[in-house]
Amino acid sequence: MTGRQSGTGPAGGPGEGAAALSLGFATVDLDRARRQGLPEVIYAPGKQPGEIAAIAAALLARTSGPVLVTRLEPGAAAGVAAELTAAGTQPGDYDPAARVLSWRPAPPAGCRVAVVTAGTADGPVADEAAAVARATGLEVTGFRDVGVAGLHRLLAVAGEIAAADVVIVIAGMEGALASAVAGLVGVPVVAVPTSTGYGAALDGITALLAMMSSCAAGVCVVNIDSGFGAAMAAHRLAFSLRRQPPAPPGRGGREG
Amino acid sequence: MTGRQSGTGPAGGPGEGAAALSLGFATVDLDRARRQGLPEVIYAPGKQPGEIAAIAAALLARTSGPVLVTRLEPGAAAGVAAELTAAGTQPGDYDPAARVLSWRPAPPAGCRVAVVTAGTADGPVADEAAAVARATGLEVTGFRDVGVAGLHRLLAVAGEIAAADVVIVIAGMEGALASAVAGLVGVPVVAVPTSTGYGAALDGITALLAMMSSCAAGVCVVNIDSGFGAAMAAHRLAFSLRRQPPAPPGRGGREG
Amino acid sequence: MTGRQSGTGPAGGPGEGAAALSLGFATVDLDRARRQGLPEVIYAPGKQPGEIAAIAAALLARTSGPVLVTRLEPGAAAGVAAELTAAGTQPGDYDPAARVLSWRPAPPAGCRVAVVTAGTADGPVADEAAAVARATGLEVTGFRDVGVAGLHRLLAVAGEIAAADVVIVIAGMEGALASAVAGLVGVPVVAVPTSTGYGAALDGITALLAMMSSCAAGVCVVNIDSGFGAAMAAHRLAFSLRRQPPAPPGRGGREG
Amino acid sequence: MTGRQSGTGPAGGPGEGAAALSLGFATVDLDRARRQGLPEVIYAPGKQPGEIAAIAAALLARTSGPVLVTRLEPGAAAGVAAELTAAGTQPGDYDPAARVLSWRPAPPAGCRVAVVTAGTADGPVADEAAAVARATGLEVTGFRDVGVAGLHRLLAVAGEIAAADVVIVIAGMEGALASAVAGLVGVPVVAVPTSTGYGAALDGITALLAMMSSCAAGVCVVNIDSGFGAAMAAHRLAFSLRRQPPAPPGRGGREG
Amino acid sequence: MTGRQSGTGPAGGPGEGAAALSLGFATVDLDRARRQGLPEVIYAPGKQPGEIAAIAAALLARTSGPVLVTRLEPGAAAGVAAELTAAGTQPGDYDPAARVLSWRPAPPAGCRVAVVTAGTADGPVADEAAAVARATGLEVTGFRDVGVAGLHRLLAVAGEIAAADVVIVIAGMEGALASAVAGLVGVPVVAVPTSTGYGAALDGITALLAMMSSCAAGVCVVNIDSGFGAAMAAHRLAFSLRRQPPAPPGRGGREG
Amino acid sequence: MTGRQSGTGPAGGPGEGAAALSLGFATVDLDRARRQGLPEVIYAPGKQPGEIAAIAAALLARTSGPVLVTRLEPGAAAGVAAELTAAGTQPGDYDPAARVLSWRPAPPAGCRVAVVTAGTADGPVADEAAAVARATGLEVTGFRDVGVAGLHRLLAVAGEIAAADVVIVIAGMEGALASAVAGLVGVPVVAVPTSTGYGAALDGITALLAMMSSCAAGVCVVNIDSGFGAAMAAHRLAFSLRRQPPAPPGRGGREG
Amino acid sequence: MTGRQSGTGPAGGPGEGAAALSLGFATVDLDRARRQGLPEVIYAPGKQPGEIAAIAAALLARTSGPVLVTRLEPGAAAGVAAELTAAGTQPGDYDPAARVLSWRPAPPAGCRVAVVTAGTADGPVADEAAAVARATGLEVTGFRDVGVAGLHRLLAVAGEIAAADVVIVIAGMEGALASAVAGLVGVPVVAVPTSTGYGAALDGITALLAMMSSCAAGVCVVNIDSGFGAAMAAHRLAFSLRRQPPAPPGRGGREG
Amino acid sequence: MTGRQSGTGPAGGPGEGAAALSLGFATVDLDRARRQGLPEVIYAPGKQPGEIAAIAAALLARTSGPVLVTRLEPGAAAGVAAELTAAGTQPGDYDPAARVLSWRPAPPAGCRVAVVTAGTADGPVADEAAAVARATGLEVTGFRDVGVAGLHRLLAVAGEIAAADVVIVIAGMEGALASAVAGLVGVPVVAVPTSTGYGAALDGITALLAMMSSCAAGVCVVNIDSGFGAAMAAHRLAFSLRRQPPAPPGRGGREG
Repeated sequence: MTGRQSGTGPAGGPGEGAAALSLGFATVDLDRARRQGLPEVIYAPGKQPGEIAAIAAALLARTSGPVLVTRLEPGAAAGVAAELTAAGTQPGDYDPAARVLSWRPAPPAGCRVAVVTAGTADGPVADEAAAVARATGLEVTGFRDVGVAGLHRLLAVAGEIAAADVVIVIAGMEGALASAVAGLVGVPVVAVPTSTGYGAALDGITALLAMMSSCAAGVCVVNIDSGFGAAMAAHRLAFSLRRQPPAPPGRGGREG
Repeated sequence: MTGRQSGTGPAGGPGEGAAALSLGFATVDLDRARRQGLPEVIYAPGKQPGEIAAIAAALLARTSGPVLVTRLEPGAAAGVAAELTAAGTQPGDYDPAARVLSWRPAPPAGCRVAVVTAGTADGPVADEAAAVARATGLEVTGFRDVGVAGLHRLLAVAGEIAAADVVIVIAGMEGALASAVAGLVGVPVVAVPTSTGYGAALDGITALLAMMSSCAAGVCVVNIDSGFGAAMAAHRLAFSLRRQPPAPPGRGGREG
Repeated sequence: MTGRQSGTGPAGGPGEGAAALSLGFATVDLDRARRQGLPEVIYAPGKQPGEIAAIAAALLARTSGPVLVTRLEPGAAAGVAAELTAAGTQPGDYDPAARVLSWRPAPPAGCRVAVVTAGTADGPVADEAAAVARATGLEVTGFRDVGVAGLHRLLAVAGEIAAADVVIVIAGMEGALASAVAGLVGVPVVAVPTSTGYGAALDGITALLAMMSSCAAGVCVVNIDSGFGAAMAAHRLAFSLRRQPPAPPGRGGREG
Repeated sequence: MTGRQSGTGPAGGPGEGAAALSLGFATVDLDRARRQGLPEVIYAPGKQPGEIAAIAAALLARTSGPVLVTRLEPGAAAGVAAELTAAGTQPGDYDPAARVLSWRPAPPAGCRVAVVTAGTADGPVADEAAAVARATGLEVTGFRDVGVAGLHRLLAVAGEIAAADVVIVIAGMEGALASAVAGLVGVPVVAVPTSTGYGAALDGITALLAMMSSCAAGVCVVNIDSGFGAAMAAHRLAFSLRRQPPAPPGRGGREG
Repeated sequence: MTGRQSGTGPAGGPGEGAAALSLGFATVDLDRARRQGLPEVIYAPGKQPGEIAAIAAALLARTSGPVLVTRLEPGAAAGVAAELTAAGTQPGDYDPAARVLSWRPAPPAGCRVAVVTAGTADGPVADEAAAVARATGLEVTGFRDVGVAGLHRLLAVAGEIAAADVVIVIAGMEGALASAVAGLVGVPVVAVPTSTGYGAALDGITALLAMMSSCAAGVCVVNIDSGFGAAMAAHRLAFSLRRQPPAPPGRGGREG
Repeated sequence: MTGRQSGTGPAGGPGEGAAALSLGFATVDLDRARRQGLPEVIYAPGKQPGEIAAIAAALLARTSGPVLVTRLEPGAAAGVAAELTAAGTQPGDYDPAARVLSWRPAPPAGCRVAVVTAGTADGPVADEAAAVARATGLEVTGFRDVGVAGLHRLLAVAGEIAAADVVIVIAGMEGALASAVAGLVGVPVVAVPTSTGYGAALDGITALLAMMSSCAAGVCVVNIDSGFGAAMAAHRLAFSLRRQPPAPPGRGGREG
Repeated sequence: MTGRQSGTGPAGGPGEGAAALSLGFATVDLDRARRQGLPEVIYAPGKQPGEIAAIAAALLARTSGPVLVTRLEPGAAAGVAAELTAAGTQPGDYDPAARVLSWRPAPPAGCRVAVVTAGTADGPVADEAAAVARATGLEVTGFRDVGVAGLHRLLAVAGEIAAADVVIVIAGMEGALASAVAGLVGVPVVAVPTSTGYGAALDGITALLAMMSSCAAGVCVVNIDSGFGAAMAAHRLAFSLRRQPPAPPGRGGREG
Repeated sequence: MTGRQSGTGPAGGPGEGAAALSLGFATVDLDRARRQGLPEVIYAPGKQPGEIAAIAAALLARTSGPVLVTRLEPGAAAGVAAELTAAGTQPGDYDPAARVLSWRPAPPAGCRVAVVTAGTADGPVADEAAAVARATGLEVTGFRDVGVAGLHRLLAVAGEIAAADVVIVIAGMEGALASAVAGLVGVPVVAVPTSTGYGAALDGITALLAMMSSCAAGVCVVNIDSGFGAAMAAHRLAFSLRRQPPAPPGRGGREG
């Protein structure tokens, strides 16, 4: 296609020149950090290494703060690193378990996130959530493989989980862990259904519907296997917490 | 329609004359008690009171042991009672909460069933399960409203539940209680998804799929809202237990 | 059923006597306020007015803080009021638009919630969310009928929405408003799909799936039409905010 | 199979000899250009290069105007080119990004199409739409990566989009862009859901249902990933526009 | 709820005061006529007669051109009429078969719409499509009950259908008529699946999916039973046609 | 709508004047008896008694052979009878169990149909199948309530079923009877899933899918609860049988 | 597993010794030819070449008449041939397009089958149907690529199709061809949905549901892509036709 | 992630030190044998050979009784064996057909399990069920390929099946065998739907729903292809049987 998308200049008019940058194949949102405290995150699937490198370079040059690429397979990560190095850009830090590439991690923001998984197969999703959360300034503690088939494992760490500012619960199969955790803590619970399981687990749809239907009030759900989405939900919470004034006298401080 | 189904004689040949009885609109299986220790159970929806009464009368006349009608609404129950009384047949015992009409309850068979529900809305399904189980000779203990949103409620009664010979777990919404209970007990767990909940609960489909995908091994599932089905699964267990020889020395006795 | 559930005493052993109360048909969780800052909320569908009144009376007698009944239709509300009045209990405040009955509203907790709807048909869900949020101490501001088919309506109020601590976005049909709002604000976004729409809207399933798949990062989703669930998610956020220590020097205060 | 389909003569009787041509494995519709202003388009998947070449050669020999093959992978394109060259037929123009092979592009027909995408992953579908539209005489302008998570990107180009005669909106995930665009323009909007996204995006089904349920009136939807279908819908519009008489006095001319 | 939505003034700032009007329960988009050549249409379900009357009165007072209410049942129509009459507003024209209430029909716009149905049960959807189309200035011709089970019925009128500027095809069950019509005409085809049929017809979902998957190229689909949506899609086409300059010499005029 | 569909003359041109008749709201196919040996059948839902009477009168006046109305509830049947009687037309024979109204039953065509049901709740569907089959000249024998939960009931009548020319198997729930019967007979088996059952039976979708997936080869399936569809499939078989020449010597005659 | 299935003797008691043969991994039904005029057919997927060869050898040794293997890929076919040749068994005739291996084709049975496809991509399913039908003694005529997007192609051959004894209609995408054909012929129509198409075609589910919901009466449907199932349904019809006595005087003979 | 999950000590406090063991990537439940008579079973998919070996070694060292790994492909099995051998641990017994690796099989527990399959393609699921059941002390007898398409195969072995203490029925496609078996026996029936079949079989979902909807009372269902789940359900039954006291006089002994 020719026309608008083949240029490489600002996408908007004079007054909003800095807000978006057209790379032809992409229109990069440069205003997101102002609106949301975080620039655009690059989702790798479907993009060529060269495209990823170009967007990352543009974000690194025109914004400050963290830059992230998610779902980046090792082979593609090597390609991106080669492109960036050739262009004289620092190639960033790649976490292969989380499949996350990142630059300029944010300083700690004073928001503690508990990442809890039901089984060992939920590990990669937890790795993504933790890597994204840490890169954006959150403090992460992990609690792995504490699913409801052996409740004593969960109960043994329930107090520690409750002390976090937000809990990310990651579970596949029937996703029951989200309800159990949400019944034990008062803080926000972000549930991540995973595609773990087979047959009736329907690649995570069952856990998604189950978490949506939780008997524990106030559970929020993000997309299947989306450790990234859960981390961003936690980041939104940190964004609110950071804006919060000191607690008025008589309402008490942090108990955790 | 005319023809085969308009007759009212035995459906089979001489050798199997007692096995089935054609009432025109129904072919009653008279052999089930021999095969399964329980005669046919009459499912009321879609049948006229006169038809229900006719089938019940046939079963009462030609079999011994319990006779049951399920999902019988109070209005229809009155109609059935009137028909039977007019025909000189004893009208049976009607349990309006369970919507079960029964005759000739079986003597206690030495099989203890725990009926556990997640929430108060699951009550009618538990009532049906308990009524059918009792009518067929099982001993029932109920544990209501002990869902996972408040785990201490379940843990407080876990020991009692584990002492039963079979546990029926009844839960709607996300159905997580089945996994939690199955992780706590070693005996058979029959899970009944209920249509409790709304939206993503999909009228019980979500709980059904979730129970199927349970992370706790060996959970069995019956149809949505089927207290009857769960009771019959328990009855099958009692059928096996009753045939069981004395435990050999060294394998220990009942610990419950 | 006889047995455990027919008693009316504490469900646990001595050490946890106050934690749960068995009413026979219900096991009331009395410990929730301690764990979560809010007692159990009574979901009305499937319960008799007498049952609702009994649970409410128990909670009012044994806990402090707000008590709530949701999805209570006007007719049932009158029945509950009559039962409570007869028993000498204060009948509470009933909001017919929200179908919420409440007692002892919490004092303002310093958490501001924006409730945003896409269309007029989403009004009842917004009413429920607002009523529950207010009863539990949150400050609510509403923005109605600002769906994406006329983006200027949303843009005109975007600044006000962004100033809240948490945003509840309520939309049926294709649910696109959640993505648009989440792209404009940095704070937590709780999306509520509604059953508004027909045909391909699938009674809210389409909006649910769409919100789950949002291109805006960090959107959290609760069950269809669950204004209550969204309010509780906001309450969890307030629970975290309240525990938060003063912001360290140099990280700035509330900008909103 | 033997019989009818093994011949290679006209499929109809004398009077309609030119309307359809049987190649044994295919019955080529030669009358489509007369009915619809465009001959049959060859959908490549499931066909051998030799079959594609044979159908293309038949169309090139017996019709005038554009001939198109869609969803033709590069390897198969090379095979088709070899077959055609060997047979002395011109091998056409192959666009690998669009996976479209075409001959005899139509002259410009005076119909302007805006092709708008939500994200970079929607690019290949936009490429197909643009290639097919151009080959059939439409004028295409592209607007890429302007999804609703950064509304300013869309608003910056809204005026240009509104000036087109028809807008093709291509979006995966929740597909919200279709509603936003349709609220901004008065011309026909053809929405193409894409299989971009994961989990709850259901391979494009979610976007399809969401676009169907759009709160913006008059959005039309074609099949998932069907850039071809959208281009053909635009071609139908051009077919109508071309037949249109001059606007009567007093109704004004083109405002765009 | 209090706050923003309880006011009744313009929703935007000074510069856009005319663009949206807040009625508290609704934010009326007053700018739509400028953008799309048609003001907002009021969808009746879920709105009280008083609310419908208030929105209609606001639109009648602040815009020119047609005003429409759709899916308005006869009882509610009487209520709306009473409210408007009491307020001194002209009550409009109500078409009970189409369930459409309208004011100030647009003058004919020179766009001819063929409305084609597969069976008699699709009649009410066709009535809605025709009423909305006529109220907005389109010329409608109807072709009823010409489904593919008797193809000669369709073939007998195919020439007349092909002469229209746009064809709306309305069909339930398997929805095959859309493919058959789209194969016969070159103009835009807007397919409306209907909820006609039972069992596997899935309340219109089957027809929706089938029309989406049509083997005839360029079929566009709107929501189930949405005669309104189809009429609005036709109106968008008329909006484009009206802007069109005279056809250049040599490209021919209207052939229909 | 005005225009084509408001006339009441032949829908086609001179040469095909007798083939279709336009009644405005319907285009009656008068050619079906020639093509298929049976005129159009009137499906009652969604039609007014007056419309049904008008179509029936037109068919009775312009065709010979059977005329049928299906799914006609008793109240509507009375309305149709009144309309016809007032117009001097014979009101036909109404079968309330089958909800079928018919005129001029066909003479026996020498084709024997076995109608087999799994349970008593499948009765109404069997009644419809039998009534339609008989009205069109088929010989029907019924076998009721012989589902696979008591296989001896089926085996007792298997020989009689196998002697029919075609077997219609009607079953809800899991629909297993179709596989069992198809394994016992060599003749065509038309399976009708019914909406009998609850929960996982999904209103007949489960039986439909199960019958489609039958392990017995050559089972054909019609729509849920469509006794009519099964009878018409049987009628098509009779249409073929009737055209059949005498069996050649050496291939034997009817064995049944 | 040990036990019953490891033996290789007759599976039944003395009286039914010939009816089933246990091969350990399979229990071969040797009685099917008597019941249905055709022995068991071997479905290749999931079986090792050695297993296929063993079952085929057993059937060839113990039955007369055709023996068939379906869905046999070329590689596996070579393996089966090698196994059989090594064992001194004739390796049969393999049709790679149909993926069918067969022995001892039945003599022509006087039943004519028309196999009609909508598009070229439906070819392999038609090949399977034709190969199985021919091997079992049916006469097959094919009509390829006559889908409804170009109705004149179908109308040109409609007379020939109507002359068959049974019509198999094979179509993917929206499956509309089944309705069109069934409206043109009076004989049985067996519809085969195919997995042709993408997106909303749902791998054949859409065509399956659409064919089930056909507006043409009496269409029967078999499983997706099951050319085998359709051929077996046709074979059942031939089984009935063959048993048919000479037509009585006055009912006419074959008109075809 | 750092923190809790990186340690390798007991997960609980002093009093429950033996109950769970944290390996960092897994929290091994060491208490399960006490609660359920069987230690945790290792599900191989998604785990590295080293992880499997580490968990197995931990269980072998800290528990007595059987240890099992399921769904272990041959390649991974070799890797596990190498890891264990290198670490001086006995590598266990690997059954490649069942894909099960096991150590320390339990002594026979006096519970007889019948494993019944519908077709040869269900074999691998039966192999898994049998291997797990045997390793945990159950006595297994197999009955293969006795599906309902040839009922005499099932009837020939019905008596033997009925003598078991529990029956596992494994079937794909329509899953009808579960209903047929459950109608013939009185003991518990655990149904396993398999992913055998194509098209409408929906990878086992159809069989799952069908078994759930069985017309035979008391059928229990486990997840698709879960031979393991069925074996564990049987093990739970054995757990109950083992605890059973001697039958009281007059209730009879084992009849089997």
